[in-house]
Amino acid sequence: MAESPMWEQVGASFVHLYYRHFDADRVQLSALYTEASCLSWEGEQFQGKSAIMEKMLNLPFQKIQHSITSQDHQPAPDNCILSMVVGQLKVDEEPVMGFHQLFILKNMNDKWICTNDIFRLALYNFA
Amino acid sequence: MAESPMWEQVGASFVHLYYRHFDADRVQLSALYTEASCLSWEGEQFQGKSAIMEKMLNLPFQKIQHSITSQDHQPAPDNCILSMVVGQLKVDEEPVMGFHQLFILKNMNDKWICTNDIFRLALYNFA
Repeated sequence: MAESPMWEQVGASFVHLYYRHFDADRVQLSALYTEASCLSWEGEQFQGKSAIMEKMLNLPFQKIQHSITSQDHQPAPDNCILSMVVGQLKVDEEPVMGFHQLFILKNMNDKWICTNDIFRLALYNFA
Repeated sequence: MAESPMWEQVGASFVHLYYRHFDADRVQLSALYTEASCLSWEGEQFQGKSAIMEKMLNLPFQKIQHSITSQDHQPAPDNCILSMVVGQLKVDEEPVMGFHQLFILKNMNDKWICTNDIFRLALYNFA
């Protein structure tokens, strides 16, 4: 079977790592952002590792578990990789909610970091 | 009131134009892609304006109407703009469905074109 293209492999590895850190130990997400990274979280905007991590570490729940329904990866301008994730998450004892999140990944000093991150719950998706 | 940043204005204008063309006259979407553009449509991949337009013009419905629930825009590497759209669509006489779509926009010859486009229905979002 043909190997999947590089952007698929890098994108899938990043997505796996991101949600593993998110669910187990959010502090480790810090290594995936830089001072130039942008996060939009439910419409609220943050720029830079410190602002992003402050948001991440103060999300109002004790435990979270993501499960991924689909992921799409594409090669993007400037040798970046674009990833879109659709899935479900469960926070504490709340009902399961849908979410979608996208990332732009860029190789800096032989490491893939996240330059752009947009997250939305799917709560208001249906009439 | 402060003007919204350039990437918000460009992103919102693009999104408005894209869905206006999509709902009224899909042929006009052609002007928004180049030969280097990538489309992932429900997991199927297409590259280049011709392949993308062939897919777009052969979608199996007569009429479609999009309505947008949220849109997020960010500045992205290589002076691009990243946009994520969450919304609902109605195809012919089918029930309303949720969808999410993202775009990377790049300025080429003083025109914003779409280098990357990923579309997913929200059908399988809930357990």
